[in-house]
Amino acid sequence: MQFSLVSRAVPSRPSKPVLGNVLVRADTDTQRVTLVGFDETLGIQTTFAAQVEESGSLTLPAKLLGDIVSRLPNEEIDITQDEDEPVVTLACSAGRYQIRGLSAEDYPKLPDVTTGEAIQISANALVEGLRGALFATSSDETKQVLTGVHLTADDESLEFAATDGHRLAVVHTVDESGSPAGDAAMNVTIPGKALRELERVLQNYSSNEPVAFKLDTTQVVFDLGDQRITTRLLEGQYPNYRQLIPKQFERQLTVDRKQLTSSLERIAVMADQRNNIVKLSISPETQSLALSVEAQEVGSGFETLPAQITGESLDIAFNVRYLLEGLKALPSSEIQIQCNSATSPSVLTPLGGTKITYLVMPVQIRS
Amino acid sequence: MQFSLVSRAVPSRPSKPVLGNVLVRADTDTQRVTLVGFDETLGIQTTFAAQVEESGSLTLPAKLLGDIVSRLPNEEIDITQDEDEPVVTLACSAGRYQIRGLSAEDYPKLPDVTTGEAIQISANALVEGLRGALFATSSDETKQVLTGVHLTADDESLEFAATDGHRLAVVHTVDESGSPAGDAAMNVTIPGKALRELERVLQNYSSNEPVAFKLDTTQVVFDLGDQRITTRLLEGQYPNYRQLIPKQFERQLTVDRKQLTSSLERIAVMADQRNNIVKLSISPETQSLALSVEAQEVGSGFETLPAQITGESLDIAFNVRYLLEGLKALPSSEIQIQCNSATSPSVLTPLGGTKITYLVMPVQIRS
Repeated sequence: MQFSLVSRAVPSRPSKPVLGNVLVRADTDTQRVTLVGFDETLGIQTTFAAQVEESGSLTLPAKLLGDIVSRLPNEEIDITQDEDEPVVTLACSAGRYQIRGLSAEDYPKLPDVTTGEAIQISANALVEGLRGALFATSSDETKQVLTGVHLTADDESLEFAATDGHRLAVVHTVDESGSPAGDAAMNVTIPGKALRELERVLQNYSSNEPVAFKLDTTQVVFDLGDQRITTRLLEGQYPNYRQLIPKQFERQLTVDRKQLTSSLERIAVMADQRNNIVKLSISPETQSLALSVEAQEVGSGFETLPAQITGESLDIAFNVRYLLEGLKALPSSEIQIQCNSATSPSVLTPLGGTKITYLVMPVQIRS
Repeated sequence: MQFSLVSRAVPSRPSKPVLGNVLVRADTDTQRVTLVGFDETLGIQTTFAAQVEESGSLTLPAKLLGDIVSRLPNEEIDITQDEDEPVVTLACSAGRYQIRGLSAEDYPKLPDVTTGEAIQISANALVEGLRGALFATSSDETKQVLTGVHLTADDESLEFAATDGHRLAVVHTVDESGSPAGDAAMNVTIPGKALRELERVLQNYSSNEPVAFKLDTTQVVFDLGDQRITTRLLEGQYPNYRQLIPKQFERQLTVDRKQLTSSLERIAVMADQRNNIVKLSISPETQSLALSVEAQEVGSGFETLPAQITGESLDIAFNVRYLLEGLKALPSSEIQIQCNSATSPSVLTPLGGTKITYLVMPVQIRS
C-alpha cells in the first residue's frame, strides 16, 4: 500500500522517463526506506522502517513492484541493488524477481518550504474542511483557480471555499488547538487533486498530532508523520465569493436531510433522463415541500415531504445533482434551505455541526 | 432484481424501439406478473406473485423502472396502467411516478420449443459443466461456433466443450438423476452469452428440481422454476475436438493447484509487461517445476515449486493467462499436467472431482 500511495503522484504520461518511476531511498542511519512519487506539481512521500544494510537510491516502476510485492507470501523480502546497473533483486522463499529501474540522479528533488513558520492544523478540522468543500471544485482543468480550494485563515479560524461557477461551498472551522495560522494571515488556492490525496492520507491518519502545513508564495507542504504531500499553489485571483452570499432571505425551510436526500435520489433517476432539473414547490400553507420532475416522452415524478416553512410560497428549480452533492456534504440530521426568489441564489446550511454554507444557483424554468 | 435480471437480455441498440423495453404482463387468473427481455437471440423471462386487480400488458423502459423501484421505501407499491395511453403510474407513500412505455402488441413472442421431450438435468451438473467450460469460449464474435459451448449427451452423461483455438476445455458430467438425454442423443452449440445468463440464474437457484431443457433444431429453452431462458442455437459444424487430445503422454507432473496459481499470478505481473509468456522447466532430478519470465528492459522473474514428475526434463512455454484461467476452473487441490514435447499440446486435469480435460497449446520460445 505504500507503493500505491506514492504511485498516485506518478504521471501516466511522464515528461521524462524517470518521472514515470518512484524514487526509492534506503538509509542505514535511520534504518528507513523512503518512497517518492512526483508529477512536477504534486509530490507524495512516505517513509517506513526497514532493515537497511546499505544506503542507496534508485527509481523503479512502482506499479510493477507493488503488484508483485502485494502477491508475495507474507514474509520478509530481501531487496538488493546491483553493483553496476540500476536493477534490484527481490528474493523470498517463493522465488526471485529482478526489476530494472533508472538512476536516481535525474529524479527531481521534491520541493520544500524553508521560509516561515509551520502552521499546525488539527486533522479533524482539515477533514471537515475538505469533506465540506472539495466536492464543489470544478473538474474542468481550464477553469484554473476554480479547480482548487481557497484557504484563508486568521487568528482563530480556517475557511475553505470551493466553487465551479454554479455552486459554492464555504466551510468555516475553528481549530480547538488555538491559533491555526500562526502569526501570518493565509490566503491561498490549493489544487483539488493534491487535497484529494491529502483527504485519502487523512483517512488512515491515526495520530493525535496536528498536521503541519508550510507555505511560501508558490508551494505548500503538508507533513503528516511519515507521509508528506507537496503541491504547487494555483495562481490567479480567487473570486470574491463572500459577496455572492445573500445577507438576508425572505424564505426559510427546515427539512430532514436523509428524507430529502432519498426523495431527490428517486427524482434524479427520472431527471437524469432529461436535463437533471428538479422543481421545488414551497407551500407554507401545508408546511410541505413538493419535488417534481418532468421528463418529456419518458415520464414524470412527484414527491412531497414535511418542512417547517417561514415566508411565502415559491417554485424554484435546481440541478438535482448539485442539491444531492451538497446534501451529502452537510453533517447534520436537519438542514435549512434559505432563498429569496426563483432567480437568486439559495443557501443550504446544516442545523448544528460544522459551519457550512452551500450556495446553489437555481435554473430558470418555464411554468 | 427481477427487473435487472430480464434487462440483461435487452439490447443496448435495439433494432426497433419496443425491444429496448421490457414486456410486463399482469394476470388476474394466476395473480402473477411476468417480465420478459429479448434481443431476438437471447430471451429471459421471470414471473413473480403480485396482487393483480386487472390483467394487462405493456412494455416499459426496464432500467428506469428498476432504478426508481429499488430506491423506494420498503413497502407495497401500487402500479396502475392508464386507460388510453401506454403509461403506468407507480404510487406509494413517498410519492408517485409516471412512466411512459410502448404497446405490448409489437413485442415479439418469446420462442418456445413444443416438439420432443424435455431433458432433465440436475442444477449441479449444469453448474459444474458451465464453470469448467464457459471460460474457454472465444470472445471474438466473428469466430461463430467457437463463441459457444458444445453440448453432447448420451444415455448416461453430458459433455461440455469449449475452445477458442488456443485452448480447449472438456467437462464430462454424469447426471445422478439417471438418463439426462432422454431417448435422443444431443449435439448442439449454445451461445456463451446465454449460458453466462444461465450460470447467473443458477447461482440463485435454490430448488432441488432439475432444470428442464427443451430443444429443436434452432432453439433451446431452459426452464428453472419461475425463470426461463431461451436462445437461438449457433449454426455450423463444431470442431472435432476429441481428436486434438493426445492419447499418450511422455511426461507427467502432479502439483499443488493453489501453490502453482499463486506463483503464476506473480509471474503474470512481469509477463504482462511483455508478451504474457511463462516458461515451465520440468526437472525430474530435483522433482521440481521452475517458472520463469523474461521481460526485456523491464525485469525477470523466477520461481520453483515441488512437483511429482515422471518422464524426462523439458522446457515448455505457455501464455500465462491460459494457464491461470484453466487452474481457476479445476476443482481439485492437486492437478496433473501431462505433455509430450515443447510444440505439442499439454493437458491439465484435476486429481478427483469433476472430470475436466483442459488442453493448452504451448508457444514457441527461442532458448
